[in-house]
Amino acid sequence: MNSFASDNAAGAHPAVLEALAAANEGYAEPYGADALTRRAADRVRAALDADAEVFFTWGGTAANILGLAAVTKPWQGVICAEQAHIAVDECGGPERFIGCKLLTVPTRDGRLTPDGVRSRIKGVGVEHHVQPAVVSLTQATEYGTVYRPEQVGELADLAHGNGLLVHMDGARLANAAASLGVPLSEFTWRAGVDVLSFGGTKNGLLSAEAVVFFEGVRERALDFPYIRKQGMGLASKMRFVAAQFDAVLAGGLWLRNADHANRMAKRLAAGVQGTAGLLVTQPVEANAVFAVLPRRAIRALQENYYFYVWDEAADEVRWMTTFATTEAEVDAFADDVRAAVAGGR
Amino acid sequence: MNSFASDNAAGAHPAVLEALAAANEGYAEPYGADALTRRAADRVRAALDADAEVFFTWGGTAANILGLAAVTKPWQGVICAEQAHIAVDECGGPERFIGCKLLTVPTRDGRLTPDGVRSRIKGVGVEHHVQPAVVSLTQATEYGTVYRPEQVGELADLAHGNGLLVHMDGARLANAAASLGVPLSEFTWRAGVDVLSFGGTKNGLLSAEAVVFFEGVRERALDFPYIRKQGMGLASKMRFVAAQFDAVLAGGLWLRNADHANRMAKRLAAGVQGTAGLLVTQPVEANAVFAVLPRRAIRALQENYYFYVWDEAADEVRWMTTFATTEAEVDAFADDVRAAVAGGR
Amino acid sequence: MNSFASDNAAGAHPAVLEALAAANEGYAEPYGADALTRRAADRVRAALDADAEVFFTWGGTAANILGLAAVTKPWQGVICAEQAHIAVDECGGPERFIGCKLLTVPTRDGRLTPDGVRSRIKGVGVEHHVQPAVVSLTQATEYGTVYRPEQVGELADLAHGNGLLVHMDGARLANAAASLGVPLSEFTWRAGVDVLSFGGTKNGLLSAEAVVFFEGVRERALDFPYIRKQGMGLASKMRFVAAQFDAVLAGGLWLRNADHANRMAKRLAAGVQGTAGLLVTQPVEANAVFAVLPRRAIRALQENYYFYVWDEAADEVRWMTTFATTEAEVDAFADDVRAAVAGGR
Amino acid sequence: MNSFASDNAAGAHPAVLEALAAANEGYAEPYGADALTRRAADRVRAALDADAEVFFTWGGTAANILGLAAVTKPWQGVICAEQAHIAVDECGGPERFIGCKLLTVPTRDGRLTPDGVRSRIKGVGVEHHVQPAVVSLTQATEYGTVYRPEQVGELADLAHGNGLLVHMDGARLANAAASLGVPLSEFTWRAGVDVLSFGGTKNGLLSAEAVVFFEGVRERALDFPYIRKQGMGLASKMRFVAAQFDAVLAGGLWLRNADHANRMAKRLAAGVQGTAGLLVTQPVEANAVFAVLPRRAIRALQENYYFYVWDEAADEVRWMTTFATTEAEVDAFADDVRAAVAGGR
Repeated sequence: MNSFASDNAAGAHPAVLEALAAANEGYAEPYGADALTRRAADRVRAALDADAEVFFTWGGTAANILGLAAVTKPWQGVICAEQAHIAVDECGGPERFIGCKLLTVPTRDGRLTPDGVRSRIKGVGVEHHVQPAVVSLTQATEYGTVYRPEQVGELADLAHGNGLLVHMDGARLANAAASLGVPLSEFTWRAGVDVLSFGGTKNGLLSAEAVVFFEGVRERALDFPYIRKQGMGLASKMRFVAAQFDAVLAGGLWLRNADHANRMAKRLAAGVQGTAGLLVTQPVEANAVFAVLPRRAIRALQENYYFYVWDEAADEVRWMTTFATTEAEVDAFADDVRAAVAGGR
Repeated sequence: MNSFASDNAAGAHPAVLEALAAANEGYAEPYGADALTRRAADRVRAALDADAEVFFTWGGTAANILGLAAVTKPWQGVICAEQAHIAVDECGGPERFIGCKLLTVPTRDGRLTPDGVRSRIKGVGVEHHVQPAVVSLTQATEYGTVYRPEQVGELADLAHGNGLLVHMDGARLANAAASLGVPLSEFTWRAGVDVLSFGGTKNGLLSAEAVVFFEGVRERALDFPYIRKQGMGLASKMRFVAAQFDAVLAGGLWLRNADHANRMAKRLAAGVQGTAGLLVTQPVEANAVFAVLPRRAIRALQENYYFYVWDEAADEVRWMTTFATTEAEVDAFADDVRAAVAGGR
Repeated sequence: MNSFASDNAAGAHPAVLEALAAANEGYAEPYGADALTRRAADRVRAALDADAEVFFTWGGTAANILGLAAVTKPWQGVICAEQAHIAVDECGGPERFIGCKLLTVPTRDGRLTPDGVRSRIKGVGVEHHVQPAVVSLTQATEYGTVYRPEQVGELADLAHGNGLLVHMDGARLANAAASLGVPLSEFTWRAGVDVLSFGGTKNGLLSAEAVVFFEGVRERALDFPYIRKQGMGLASKMRFVAAQFDAVLAGGLWLRNADHANRMAKRLAAGVQGTAGLLVTQPVEANAVFAVLPRRAIRALQENYYFYVWDEAADEVRWMTTFATTEAEVDAFADDVRAAVAGGR
Repeated sequence: MNSFASDNAAGAHPAVLEALAAANEGYAEPYGADALTRRAADRVRAALDADAEVFFTWGGTAANILGLAAVTKPWQGVICAEQAHIAVDECGGPERFIGCKLLTVPTRDGRLTPDGVRSRIKGVGVEHHVQPAVVSLTQATEYGTVYRPEQVGELADLAHGNGLLVHMDGARLANAAASLGVPLSEFTWRAGVDVLSFGGTKNGLLSAEAVVFFEGVRERALDFPYIRKQGMGLASKMRFVAAQFDAVLAGGLWLRNADHANRMAKRLAAGVQGTAGLLVTQPVEANAVFAVLPRRAIRALQENYYFYVWDEAADEVRWMTTFATTEAEVDAFADDVRAAVAGGR
């Protein structure tokens, strides 16, 4: 059954599996004290063009929560979009592990706006209220949209001007980079991001994410090894996590994977747009297509494809493409979508 | 540099890497809803001869903490050995994630005794005191000793008779099974274990552990999916975790790996025992050798080998063997140990 | 300086202080094992006409959080109004202590509606999402409005029908009772409330609150002594907490106090309503008056009175009355309000 | 029934109740923004001869946990005596609220020794292990013994030399001061204490404790208002908490109360010491007498007196005296003890 459900429904890029095999040589110091882990961290720094602190862990939820834990006290709040993964899809993990509150902001397209952020900076200095401490952006957003560097910069200026830090959930950071066509640094640290989840799993890795602390919060990174261990996120055979990043960062595969996924989403959008009865509801800037179509058509498609209905009430679906999605898969699916909407299936 | 530092210093068994490649076919439902994950869970049940609830996660610390979280309330206590991994090596994770207290018992060889457990069952029903709720055994223990089935049974009877549950940290469960030469069921659920961490990583997997809830606590398992997700332990591309267990459980490789590691430890012990100035301090029942030897010899050996000094004050070291340790490595190391102790190096 | 800031700006009713003196005789078993605590709990049961489990603690935030902790698991959610005290005024205490998430619903007048509650019962059974487990109503609400018994009943039916429990934050329970003119039971357990914070402090006590578990959740109450102690809410000299409830429940003083406060609010509303440029924004059903008036008038009034601006942007203020507020104070204040709005001061 | 069970079995000193009545005049700003709270804080500073940050709360468990929360990260550890209140009598509150681990040290008489503390400063810098961050002393100890200023100083030097802070649980601080006959400053901040729980409840207050942050940790005190509120320890009608401290600090009553309690303990010890079959097991330096006596005698005494058996196995009891204990009560009790031990009752 073909899948447009999630980046996670795809497997791993063959180069990643080869890297695991190559890493499986002899003994290595466990817990990340090995040479391969050091090399992979160097590659992350090079990709970001930053002398940052870099740590690896298995999953994206852990990368977000543990990274935030390093910069948030329990009585503080994290401002984020209502749709943010940390707010909706982590089963309350930030609240349980950090103790903090998420201060959510409704958004139209997944992107926070300065006004939205400003609306949650209140009660400052009043002990009854959670104190806003971090603004968390998802890049690319849960709606497949992408913050432009200057949008990140404007939000970061607002945050910093109010004494808040900036966290970026980059589970799909590569898709954003491919979409923007600019170096990673331009929409991360140069735009004011302090802490970054650099996602790998959604981009063709088996299971690997990096947490990055930039210049201004380097001191907080000193705590991170303990936070990661206490937070159950320290891999004993770390070389196998690091090897995955090493594989895709070495020759630019991370960007090619993401660029391919993005192009498949654009191709899908192009293939279905204009169909009477179907509306693409969000700009297709990364590897997601959101669309409203007749419920009957959704049901018919779900017999042969695996994907999520994003908003049951609105008959809105989410179709994700991945590094592994082929043009043939996209074209066949677009055909089927058009037919289903037309009622001809 | 050869390593007797940890089971985690070894890589993965080649069969495990092959299984990853085989699992990397097409799309799969993420988060464990795929067929391979179901099959691997079935294999765990078969290995345990039990109709249990089985869940996978990446790491052993998570397996312990998340499993305990399902059966422990924050104001309750977990009785364990002073040397237990949960007490010493998880950076306070049980306390932070569950909120509970660990009620530690000094032991001579890592094994809890009924008297030791009994000494911590106190203050029951008194609101000022943490209420003991779980007894956690490590099998094989942190000292490389192994509980015999009747020892587990005696502790479990004591626990159950006082309304406590029994948790087993089986990070080295396979080593215990190989050492005892009895089916897993005999020293787990048939002996009274309620919740089990079934370790894979220390036995030749890259990074895979299972949490098992037996009959009597099946209802608590209903909470586990949420606990695992909130606890940052849910793998999105779960097939790659499950595949690792599938690979070693399919044909008995899990037991052969452990048996080999155990034999290497016995070989090493045999190779160094009797050396004047060196004392093996614990029974060698699994894949660890503990020994006291002159500090000068320790320092000399550490120039060429990677291993831990367990007790600095006592000049006690820990040497671990693994599925990958070769007879040649052991023999060379034993030679070097004898020479170092003799002062001839 | 006269105060319409908060019920907490008033002191204690003289009868309460007398009760403390009377309780100060000889030795008493600490931690609530004394006769006076038993008697006060009996009085709470009598007031509620219920064979419930009753516990005392010092503060309202603790009463809410500890009561909720007894019925909520960390990965569950509590549905409440956006304005709820637990969501806004407890500095993230529920999140930190319980680990849970608050699922907030916008409301017009502080009262949850069935549609509002229904909108947050989603993602049920899906491990990625916090699982709704409790609906928490504030009675009287933060806006000084009061749920009628049938409104509580409708929400409770909805909650129970979906497997959720019902919590009532009754920091101003007495004000609601006085407003409705019906027995407490009619809008608590008979209407479906499972756990209740029965407030005392805002009604003329120094510092005393009760947490009540009704029939259906009596088993959860077994955990409460430990939760209260671990949650720092167990008074050692409990007799002095219990004595306060004993004093006001004995002869109906609790209801007279609340009724007086309510009447003072109605008198204040009557005294200012109809003033050109001033709008009372919420129904005055308990002891609060919300009003919009010119910013200039607010500033002028604040020179002589202590009260909160509820919504800076809207120039909306909150005026609270208490058991101690006098008619003369109200009338003088109303005069000053009218004058300030007219610009004559 | 006369009580030698606990300082908490006594009521409040009449002067404290009078102070409550005096405080009950008109309106006051809630949550500690009132003049009386400021005055009481000044009196605490004066008593300590320190320009410290002072906060009030209701209970001793909260004072300890919230104070520690301000200086401890979740992955850190607090070194304390095995018998410490935070370790034994707070139902795991420190673990749940802070997330930390208590690193307990066996002691002979409740007092930590440098060697004991040193034994728990290990694993520093290793992410697998909880990082020791605070040494917590109880003054007077749970065994009724008292640290001399130079003993506090030696432990503090050791702590600070290793980058740890020093916390003092002073639930019975006044008893220690009366016992030592030196100013509070000499065994608190001048000896190196950083954070202090200054107890009131056990010394004749109804329910009032202070948390004090000295010079070196003043910055951490900035967080305390949020920690206290989130931790459910902020009194709304704070004036009634502050008034209690104000009452006893104003004219030295705090010290007279404690001195009286101490003298009653010495009188009791003198009255029973030398009785054949009874052994006083700890130095009587504050207001506790620990004794071993025949089980039969314990049972006989418990028919007429309320007190705790400290160690069931050893037939060791704890007798506490209080500000309210009379010489006649002591003498009658001592008579009864001697008679019971002699078997003549």
